[in-house]
Amino acid sequence: MSKKKIALDMDEVIADVMASYLDVIEKEYGRRLKKEEYWGQKPYKIFPDGMKIRQYLFKEGFFRNFPVMEGAKEGVAFLMEHYDVYITTSATEFRNSLTEKIDWLAEHFPAIHWKKVVLCGDKTILKTDYMIDDHVHNLETFEGTGVLFTATHNIHENRFQRCNNWEEVIAFFKSELEK
Amino acid sequence: MSKKKIALDMDEVIADVMASYLDVIEKEYGRRLKKEEYWGQKPYKIFPDGMKIRQYLFKEGFFRNFPVMEGAKEGVAFLMEHYDVYITTSATEFRNSLTEKIDWLAEHFPAIHWKKVVLCGDKTILKTDYMIDDHVHNLETFEGTGVLFTATHNIHENRFQRCNNWEEVIAFFKSELEK
Repeated sequence: MSKKKIALDMDEVIADVMASYLDVIEKEYGRRLKKEEYWGQKPYKIFPDGMKIRQYLFKEGFFRNFPVMEGAKEGVAFLMEHYDVYITTSATEFRNSLTEKIDWLAEHFPAIHWKKVVLCGDKTILKTDYMIDDHVHNLETFEGTGVLFTATHNIHENRFQRCNNWEEVIAFFKSELEK
Repeated sequence: MSKKKIALDMDEVIADVMASYLDVIEKEYGRRLKKEEYWGQKPYKIFPDGMKIRQYLFKEGFFRNFPVMEGAKEGVAFLMEHYDVYITTSATEFRNSLTEKIDWLAEHFPAIHWKKVVLCGDKTILKTDYMIDDHVHNLETFEGTGVLFTATHNIHENRFQRCNNWEEVIAFFKSELEK
């Protein structure tokens, strides 16, 4: 039987974007936020003039330097063993992000073949069995099984299978294999 | 009723890659090939050492300078009026192509929103109603209606709806609207 397909998001799922946001917030506002100060909010909506934080998405290098999300390397390796994994990432809004995302993947996830990478706009035309994403709007239009990866902006959502970290992702997809 | 979705390929469909191949063949071999000399063959398989022609795909600037395929501007404008058009292009094999493709689209097809652009690897995870492509392998795995856009390397294929040029694309999709 052929492996089931997973559309795996990049930002806030395998790439720790929030860590980089905290860096630029510290640079702009002079101090590093604690989790209880930002958790539940989008990072660029914490301060009244916070939209200048979102502008970093357009700056050269921003997408190249995210830390790898904790547990993601082991998690992706597990998924790739049992599933057909595609990296599906919204990227075309940010011109600089395209090459930076490819280079980031080549550095941190060299086992992912170029055939399995999708740099896209909206995700409504993707067809896979599963989608792991931090954005509710991507899961809302998805016809397969959506898995919401917990991020600061989605903690009040309760319509989807939620995974709070990569250990929970592995546990969920292990249980799916046993069905 | 919402518009039906089309996955529209870029290279050899809206971007005239063959024109650029003929340029580099002329540069490498000293003369411009006539259509009867290459038609039916892949451009890098015409000469015994022709794989050096394929290497141009990895060179900076190659994807930025394709001419627009004849009739494509009018054709894409027609499709966008009646269908939900996504540009779906295999690109992740060629690192330089990513930004160049985005810039090329911005120059020649500024009406196409970034949300509607997909830079991908294989196309097996795309789900649209139609796919317009010059590569048979993309249509073979596609579940909707495949439309083969004639290119030098696909002229012996007869399993798919064929369009030889953009006039025929418009005619076909007009007839689909009347169904």
